[in-house]
Amino acid sequence: MLLKKNIPFRYVFGKIKYEIALVVLYTLVIVLIHDRFNLKATINIPLTVPMIMGTVISLLLAFRSNQAYDRWWEARTVWGAIVNDSRSFTREVLTFINSAEFPEEAERLRERMIRRQMAWCYSLGQQLRGLSATEGLERLIPKREVAYVARFANVPMALLELHAKDLQIALQRDWINAYQQVQIDSTLNKFSDSMGKCERIKNTVFPSTYSLYIHFALNFFIMLLPFGVIEFFGWGAVPLVGAIAASFLLIEKMAIHLQDPFDNKPTDTPMTTIARTIERDLRQMLNDNYVPETPPVYSYYVM
Amino acid sequence: MLLKKNIPFRYVFGKIKYEIALVVLYTLVIVLIHDRFNLKATINIPLTVPMIMGTVISLLLAFRSNQAYDRWWEARTVWGAIVNDSRSFTREVLTFINSAEFPEEAERLRERMIRRQMAWCYSLGQQLRGLSATEGLERLIPKREVAYVARFANVPMALLELHAKDLQIALQRDWINAYQQVQIDSTLNKFSDSMGKCERIKNTVFPSTYSLYIHFALNFFIMLLPFGVIEFFGWGAVPLVGAIAASFLLIEKMAIHLQDPFDNKPTDTPMTTIARTIERDLRQMLNDNYVPETPPVYSYYVM
Amino acid sequence: MLLKKNIPFRYVFGKIKYEIALVVLYTLVIVLIHDRFNLKATINIPLTVPMIMGTVISLLLAFRSNQAYDRWWEARTVWGAIVNDSRSFTREVLTFINSAEFPEEAERLRERMIRRQMAWCYSLGQQLRGLSATEGLERLIPKREVAYVARFANVPMALLELHAKDLQIALQRDWINAYQQVQIDSTLNKFSDSMGKCERIKNTVFPSTYSLYIHFALNFFIMLLPFGVIEFFGWGAVPLVGAIAASFLLIEKMAIHLQDPFDNKPTDTPMTTIARTIERDLRQMLNDNYVPETPPVYSYYVM
Amino acid sequence: MLLKKNIPFRYVFGKIKYEIALVVLYTLVIVLIHDRFNLKATINIPLTVPMIMGTVISLLLAFRSNQAYDRWWEARTVWGAIVNDSRSFTREVLTFINSAEFPEEAERLRERMIRRQMAWCYSLGQQLRGLSATEGLERLIPKREVAYVARFANVPMALLELHAKDLQIALQRDWINAYQQVQIDSTLNKFSDSMGKCERIKNTVFPSTYSLYIHFALNFFIMLLPFGVIEFFGWGAVPLVGAIAASFLLIEKMAIHLQDPFDNKPTDTPMTTIARTIERDLRQMLNDNYVPETPPVYSYYVM
Amino acid sequence: MLLKKNIPFRYVFGKIKYEIALVVLYTLVIVLIHDRFNLKATINIPLTVPMIMGTVISLLLAFRSNQAYDRWWEARTVWGAIVNDSRSFTREVLTFINSAEFPEEAERLRERMIRRQMAWCYSLGQQLRGLSATEGLERLIPKREVAYVARFANVPMALLELHAKDLQIALQRDWINAYQQVQIDSTLNKFSDSMGKCERIKNTVFPSTYSLYIHFALNFFIMLLPFGVIEFFGWGAVPLVGAIAASFLLIEKMAIHLQDPFDNKPTDTPMTTIARTIERDLRQMLNDNYVPETPPVYSYYVM
Repeated sequence: MLLKKNIPFRYVFGKIKYEIALVVLYTLVIVLIHDRFNLKATINIPLTVPMIMGTVISLLLAFRSNQAYDRWWEARTVWGAIVNDSRSFTREVLTFINSAEFPEEAERLRERMIRRQMAWCYSLGQQLRGLSATEGLERLIPKREVAYVARFANVPMALLELHAKDLQIALQRDWINAYQQVQIDSTLNKFSDSMGKCERIKNTVFPSTYSLYIHFALNFFIMLLPFGVIEFFGWGAVPLVGAIAASFLLIEKMAIHLQDPFDNKPTDTPMTTIARTIERDLRQMLNDNYVPETPPVYSYYVM
Repeated sequence: MLLKKNIPFRYVFGKIKYEIALVVLYTLVIVLIHDRFNLKATINIPLTVPMIMGTVISLLLAFRSNQAYDRWWEARTVWGAIVNDSRSFTREVLTFINSAEFPEEAERLRERMIRRQMAWCYSLGQQLRGLSATEGLERLIPKREVAYVARFANVPMALLELHAKDLQIALQRDWINAYQQVQIDSTLNKFSDSMGKCERIKNTVFPSTYSLYIHFALNFFIMLLPFGVIEFFGWGAVPLVGAIAASFLLIEKMAIHLQDPFDNKPTDTPMTTIARTIERDLRQMLNDNYVPETPPVYSYYVM
Repeated sequence: MLLKKNIPFRYVFGKIKYEIALVVLYTLVIVLIHDRFNLKATINIPLTVPMIMGTVISLLLAFRSNQAYDRWWEARTVWGAIVNDSRSFTREVLTFINSAEFPEEAERLRERMIRRQMAWCYSLGQQLRGLSATEGLERLIPKREVAYVARFANVPMALLELHAKDLQIALQRDWINAYQQVQIDSTLNKFSDSMGKCERIKNTVFPSTYSLYIHFALNFFIMLLPFGVIEFFGWGAVPLVGAIAASFLLIEKMAIHLQDPFDNKPTDTPMTTIARTIERDLRQMLNDNYVPETPPVYSYYVM
Repeated sequence: MLLKKNIPFRYVFGKIKYEIALVVLYTLVIVLIHDRFNLKATINIPLTVPMIMGTVISLLLAFRSNQAYDRWWEARTVWGAIVNDSRSFTREVLTFINSAEFPEEAERLRERMIRRQMAWCYSLGQQLRGLSATEGLERLIPKREVAYVARFANVPMALLELHAKDLQIALQRDWINAYQQVQIDSTLNKFSDSMGKCERIKNTVFPSTYSLYIHFALNFFIMLLPFGVIEFFGWGAVPLVGAIAASFLLIEKMAIHLQDPFDNKPTDTPMTTIARTIERDLRQMLNDNYVPETPPVYSYYVM
Repeated sequence: MLLKKNIPFRYVFGKIKYEIALVVLYTLVIVLIHDRFNLKATINIPLTVPMIMGTVISLLLAFRSNQAYDRWWEARTVWGAIVNDSRSFTREVLTFINSAEFPEEAERLRERMIRRQMAWCYSLGQQLRGLSATEGLERLIPKREVAYVARFANVPMALLELHAKDLQIALQRDWINAYQQVQIDSTLNKFSDSMGKCERIKNTVFPSTYSLYIHFALNFFIMLLPFGVIEFFGWGAVPLVGAIAASFLLIEKMAIHLQDPFDNKPTDTPMTTIARTIERDLRQMLNDNYVPETPPVYSYYVM
């Protein structure tokens, strides 16, 4: 996630530098031809023509920004739900699972489940970013479990299955009652839903036809622009067209970056930071004040 | 679903080639008449007139794109929910259904239900695409069940009924407790909801009056265009009108393609691919590492 | 619901024929006066004035189309939910209600409840359309029940009460356990919600002030138009103004028709067709392959 | 709620009569000055300047109309939910609460709760309109209860507490089972949610900065208008500016009226009418065919 | 939250005074140069150019206003849900927790939980505003509990854990049944969700790239404006450009203020006021008519 401060100029404009260079070159060529061969009457266009195109393109860019923002915000909302559900899960595990007979075993079960929940958050984040979903899990769960989940294509799903097996054990030993088991199982369903929602956002390409079309229409609009302004500005058309083109191209680029919130980019959902907050909170509920390592810090974004 | 890469030019523009040919022809005729009979004063229109039309049409196209996108995204979301619920269903079946007395029978019941869930996903996808809903199910469920469901108009609904009957059996034999049965039954309700949502999107035509009207207004706008630009461009009006018409027609076509996500087209929801992922995940939870056959691969889309 | 095909031209344009006639007459009068008295300088308006009005009216029409579409789509979604919940209800009734002692009585109860659910769907549809809510129910439920519900102002609500009484009986006779009863009762609550949502859409008028205002502003805009184009087109202004007016008036009419989806019009939610599908599915689950009568078929819509 | 018919002209335009008078006066003064001192060259503005303002104001008014409509529709939806939940509550009370031993006492409890639910609806409506929340409750609940709830700042909340106490009594006497009590208690939570949603809409002012700003920008736009059209129309500018100003001012006023749906105005949510419908339905379920008094009838709206 | 009345002029325009001063200065310089060197032909721009920019910027500002409003409204909705759930929680605690044997101890437990709920609301509000989350809690909960929660990074989360522990105690002593415990625990989950939603809104920066870009494009648009109007107005361009710039800059500023509803500003969600209302209502349910201290009153907003 980009922070509020310190976003470098080059980050924003770096994304469109080649496009802008091309637009400037193109406008230069047209001005040159116009100037040399005195073609005023022939290649001049009334500004109303690019304006009609400008209206429909503005609406399409607004449409696209909206959908991109919705994807980004849904991704953030899903990770917010993961935070909430992880805390509720921990609270339920801590207060529901009890054993008068084997208090220490129950204690171990509770701790195992809560640490596994921390692992689940990291694992999901890494899987969504296309990294190894088991890396670093040994820090939180037993090696035996790491080995078990490693053989699954979908590691977080396997971790949820281990949760469910532990719950069944607790029920069979009477450390939890039947309603409480179903209640915690409902929380597992919520994790499953959150995971699936992230995968859906990750795997569903924004309709490529729209992307392509908006791109074509935008380029056509920019190609018309110099003909519309050349009469008034002469050489001044070059910076003017450049600036207007930059305005429109930037909106398109931003929508493109925002629409894929799990792609290991600065505009990503800050999954590592969120997972770390979850770990800190869950550890405190376990009376463990170990603060997890700070993830690498960048000057203008967090991951 | 269209992929990000390799979308052929002909796929995008192929959809409007006849319309564009007509527009070019029409503009040519007008330029010809204009040129021959020197009708400048009579058939020239101030560009503001098509511009007023252009504004309202742009807004209607934005409205239509929005609704089409919403249908498409809802379809995708429903199939995402099917993924999540299939995993939760499997996790619950695996951990809830147990029998100390008849462990092998319970094992068989669990496997039967999970394999039937895989079948449900394929069956729903085929039914939505208008193909045979029972084709290929023998691979996953017993012939007896295939025969039973085949007599239903709605095969996936019949499969859910078989799920429910198995659950009732498990409850009667005490392999599951009463809360757990209701909990899994709630998941069956979610499958029923997802199926119904897909049917609703499939069976509900986007309001035809809007489709028709937008189509008429768009054609009227395109027919006005040549009169507006002919004064400035002469023969140059032909490519200009062609390009502007293409821009507007493409948005309309894309909305039309996006709004029906279950029609066996490249822009479809990739139901076969999703069903295959579900099969892979569910098999792994059953300790079965068989990877289902890859569906046919296309260069720029998946089904 | 309008189908995709065969929508007659007269259906679409029939709705605005009087308005268009008036607009054409009005424009004719203005052109005549203009022509006769040579008032060019006096009654000519720069096109930018209607354009400012055109922008705000376009936005208001987009706003109105959006809200009308949302009402229409919500109505359709509610009836989709009725389909899903009817199937879930039937599945639960069939698998939950059992009696080892009185299997035949339980069988009769199950069938009675499921047939009553079919009746509920038809009854709700007829009540929403302002027709008799008890007509034709004898086909599905006992005369005694028809007589009972007939004295209620809200017949479908009374049918749900009969469902609930049967459930209580099943619980008292131990044909169903306590969790299952609450689970089916939750489904009854969903029917109650769906019914109430339909009534809300039916009974809530789209804010009349907006309707009125949009109507006034649109008429004002159309009255300005001839003054804006008369200078350029002379007698040609008549078809031009007619066509532009038709474009705007049609959007308004369509929103008006779409916003009331339970008014016994071709743009309605196809409740009869949906109820018929539910009857077919529920009967098949009862092993009854009777296919309900096809409702009257129209060439371009279903009811 | 405004009805579809009979909305008097004065209701719609009465709201902006002072504003319009001012605009007309202002335009008159400008035309006068312009005419007298022949200031054509100095105070004439190209129409494009008000048009740029017109675009941004149109979008802001569309934004505001949208939010106002959403508040109004949410208010209506909440009251729709109150209808549905009141019916579900009544159905559950009638079928869940039973006593073989004390059938008459149970009967009295059922009736008391259902009548209290009617009272709750009236009470909430009156509280939201800023009227006495206990007025007229004696008609439906015992005096003792009226006295009890009267000491609460939030009367409907106190009525829900009484519901909950009765449920606890029913549970303790075994007239209801534990799952049923929790199920009805969930319905009470829904009433609590609905009540809170109404309070939120009532108490949350639409962001005043937006209101203010839109108001300022709109006035600035109207003040620019005469300068833009004076050149073309002379004295004709007065009615033209007046009509355009009326168009924009009306949209603003309508949004303002719609955004506060609990303010004892004709555009209100028709809470009294809804509460009356609930009373009629609930009484019929109690076998009581008393039809509650019709609330005062107005010619073009219901309260 | 800003109130409807008394918003001082300086509050609204104070936010853009430096920007406006700069715009005025800039326009002055351009008019001066234009006037001195008679550069009319060179630096004059057709107004259509800023108009194309104006359209896209208007749409982006509408997009941004929408998202900012949605964040603000979601924040308010979450706090509305906290009100509703606090009341439901209290009702459930009061009616569910009972002990025939130890009525006084149960009474104490009920009061302790309800007072802790009041504390939770204040604590969450302070934490979101970046203030001390434990300040003033001694007024409502025992010192022992204050000390316990103070060691947590997330104090409200710790308070919920204490709630859950009390519930478990009530279950173990049989003062509550198993379904009731799960029901209240579900309410705790809702508190956890509400808390997490607030944190999400607080911690998620509105996409900085959009903020930056809209800011750049807006400034570019304002810099173009004087060149467009200078020809018509001369020195009159200064107030005109100033007023148009103010219109656009104000919309941007308002969106910026609205989008962060937990930042200790007058546009905040009025969390202190809401928490106070909750305290009053919950105390009344405890038969305690103590009215909490009024928070500091401001002339045009509440906190």
